[in-house]
Amino acid sequence: MLMDYRVVLNVLGTVIKFLGISMLAPLLVALYYHEPDSIRIFAFSSILTFFAGLLLEKIFKAEFEELSHRESILIVALGWFMAAVFGGVPFLLAGLSPVDALFESMSGFTTTGSSILPNIEIYSRSILFWRGLTQWLGGMGIIVLVLAILPRIAVAGRQMFRSEAPGPIKDKLKPRLKDTAQILWGVYIIFTVIEIGLLYYAGMTLYDATVHSFSTLATGGFSPNNQSIGAYDSINIELIILVFMLIGGSNFNLFYRTLNVNWKSLISDREFQVYTMIILTSTAVIALHLWGVGKTIEEAVRYASFQVVSILTTTGFSSTDFSQWPESTKLILLLLMFVGGSAGSTGGALKVVRVVLLMKYGAREIYKSIHPKMVRPIRLGDTVIPEDVMQAIFSFFILYLLVFVGSSLVLSMLGLDFMSSISASATTLGNVGPGLSAHVGPMSNFASLHVVGKLVLILNMWIGRLEVMTVLVLFVPSFWKK
Amino acid sequence: MLMDYRVVLNVLGTVIKFLGISMLAPLLVALYYHEPDSIRIFAFSSILTFFAGLLLEKIFKAEFEELSHRESILIVALGWFMAAVFGGVPFLLAGLSPVDALFESMSGFTTTGSSILPNIEIYSRSILFWRGLTQWLGGMGIIVLVLAILPRIAVAGRQMFRSEAPGPIKDKLKPRLKDTAQILWGVYIIFTVIEIGLLYYAGMTLYDATVHSFSTLATGGFSPNNQSIGAYDSINIELIILVFMLIGGSNFNLFYRTLNVNWKSLISDREFQVYTMIILTSTAVIALHLWGVGKTIEEAVRYASFQVVSILTTTGFSSTDFSQWPESTKLILLLLMFVGGSAGSTGGALKVVRVVLLMKYGAREIYKSIHPKMVRPIRLGDTVIPEDVMQAIFSFFILYLLVFVGSSLVLSMLGLDFMSSISASATTLGNVGPGLSAHVGPMSNFASLHVVGKLVLILNMWIGRLEVMTVLVLFVPSFWKK
Repeated sequence: MLMDYRVVLNVLGTVIKFLGISMLAPLLVALYYHEPDSIRIFAFSSILTFFAGLLLEKIFKAEFEELSHRESILIVALGWFMAAVFGGVPFLLAGLSPVDALFESMSGFTTTGSSILPNIEIYSRSILFWRGLTQWLGGMGIIVLVLAILPRIAVAGRQMFRSEAPGPIKDKLKPRLKDTAQILWGVYIIFTVIEIGLLYYAGMTLYDATVHSFSTLATGGFSPNNQSIGAYDSINIELIILVFMLIGGSNFNLFYRTLNVNWKSLISDREFQVYTMIILTSTAVIALHLWGVGKTIEEAVRYASFQVVSILTTTGFSSTDFSQWPESTKLILLLLMFVGGSAGSTGGALKVVRVVLLMKYGAREIYKSIHPKMVRPIRLGDTVIPEDVMQAIFSFFILYLLVFVGSSLVLSMLGLDFMSSISASATTLGNVGPGLSAHVGPMSNFASLHVVGKLVLILNMWIGRLEVMTVLVLFVPSFWKK
Repeated sequence: MLMDYRVVLNVLGTVIKFLGISMLAPLLVALYYHEPDSIRIFAFSSILTFFAGLLLEKIFKAEFEELSHRESILIVALGWFMAAVFGGVPFLLAGLSPVDALFESMSGFTTTGSSILPNIEIYSRSILFWRGLTQWLGGMGIIVLVLAILPRIAVAGRQMFRSEAPGPIKDKLKPRLKDTAQILWGVYIIFTVIEIGLLYYAGMTLYDATVHSFSTLATGGFSPNNQSIGAYDSINIELIILVFMLIGGSNFNLFYRTLNVNWKSLISDREFQVYTMIILTSTAVIALHLWGVGKTIEEAVRYASFQVVSILTTTGFSSTDFSQWPESTKLILLLLMFVGGSAGSTGGALKVVRVVLLMKYGAREIYKSIHPKMVRPIRLGDTVIPEDVMQAIFSFFILYLLVFVGSSLVLSMLGLDFMSSISASATTLGNVGPGLSAHVGPMSNFASLHVVGKLVLILNMWIGRLEVMTVLVLFVPSFWKK
């Protein structure tokens, strides 16, 4: 349980350096579109970030073979925070306040997609490209990405992978972590390229197709349009994005297994089955409601299915202003914000598998109260879930609820109405994006919030992306003791 | 694990018979106040109920020494339901619809205090006396009461006591259950008499003092006034009721221990400490808010403290229309509805001790993620909480949330607004009483709800009072198998 700060800062330097390099992409976009201001912004940001990382690396030279548990946690937690800080520099230079820049950047990397920008379309294409790229980088995991590229860290990164990967059971595809990371990123890249092609084919510009594909697969939800996907009013585009949101919210390990091991892997997976069932029933119920308030059946199904998938997968795109929907449908969307995507997906929140296991746990106690002496393990498909995994899931659930309640309270103390407070809190913690009231809904933004409220939501996004524990642990004094 | 239905129906007969006898009390009130209609109502109800019970007893003659686990559960669950059914007969005869009568009666026995009556004050004194008495009988537990009185069942009632008594750890004061039941009821009666005296002294009529004392100690909340406690606009009365609500929400075992074993029992109890702390902080925060929106400091503290205690103890009296308060204060009240009173109190909801243990469980996992190999039991004061108790608490929590979510969904599907749906659901499940919106708030009632909504809330009250499991288990087919 050692903690060598040199090691931590050294690895952080590598991550930051990498981030600096990734800023060359929006720089190219700025050059292509002849955006002189943005060229300066990205040239400066890129150099600043790269050399900041390099400096850290050089100052804190360290030799290591295996990272300790605490070092790994600290690298992951701070790695994400520093990514948000440096990733926010372009926004800062584009005129946002420091807190707003951090908000937008954190919302990007954590694939939340809540925006602080009152008018998205006034920003340059390269800025909005970077905004989409932060989501894409964050989607599969920055640390996993660095693992996939750098062999030096890969060997030592087992624990980091655990801290960053979403879901209660960490599934390793290959004995060597680097191979797992490469497979995951490979699948991710392939899907992204396919989506870009399809969206382009459906009528988007290549630019729009790329930026939207970044934030679809990452279940991020940033769009360069004020009206999000609603701006196109195209069923084809909505359908394509719907399918790729579904993919983004599924377990990426399963896609690999389906293609390489057993083609039934996906459809025989219990979590995937429940995930599909949730989508179908929620869509049906909401569509019926929308039909009841005067929409045609086609419209009702179209809008309901898109929003259900968008919220459940924690993407957050909107094809219509669902903050104006009947309140019963908003209650369903609020619940979906807590469920979230599948384990091993790019989606956030509790994850379907945890919700299933929690329900099974509750149901078991009912059986126990009939047969008090019966021993009955919790199963998921054929797998028996060990009690210590269940314990971790519970604690996660409790802490998640506590953070949700705490941040809702703070927001509401700051004067936000009830629905705005709880939905803003749930949407940021679950890395979804829009809230459910007109004030923080899909056609609005978080600009008008009090600065304390913004900081709380930034914290929520960070905590939510790293599944609570990795961030909360930093606030325990004994974590920092030798 | 046998189930002898004759035994179940036989004991149920005894409980119903007892209920018939208890209806003589409102009959006396009707005679005293010369209410001819009500005399007829209670004479009929009392005879009907008594003989229905007697008939059950005679038809299903049964010899038993110890009740089986399943028999006990069934007796408790059905016992409460039948109490609500027969207890609702006077309301039915007074002109309510069958569902409304069941609602009011279930709300009484479960000490919820949600009312279906649009205008309470048009009903006779004896009807409103009965309404208060149902709460008082339900407060300490009908079955416990029967245990305290009837030696035949007392021997066999260990499991019934478990199913009915609130809280995760069942504290037996005496080796013989009958003695424990008598002590609890003794303490309860003494407090009730003292409160009646004090309220009378503070200016209430003896009638008002009695009915309010019934529903204070029971943490019920029924008042014969449309304006609840606000009708008196008296600080003294509010203070007296506040103190006795506090008592009602405390562990009654502790009062006995404090007087007979160790005078420090109450103040050294961890749950009581947290209970006090929650009240003080919630009052402070809400008072500050009310002060901020224009109330004087005195008013703010007065109304805040009364409502916090009323909601946390799940009593539900109101001294003002808190549905008009700022939304942030309503969020706090909503959270308090989930916390509820102490274990072993007459209060409902999760109970303070469970909330404390759930938080400790969450916190432990944070420590575990720093020291993965550390074994650290959950403690409450000096007591180590066994893992199986924790498991039961978790399951309870999950099932409680599921019932809450499910009933909120149904209400909102029926067209109720968001705040009304979730607060009506939380307030009935927690046996609190009023909701938090103008529609179902303290100055309103549940009369306008759809009949399906009323049935859902009746179910909620029943489930909430018996701490979820005892009722839910009836819906599991294997419970009914031989």
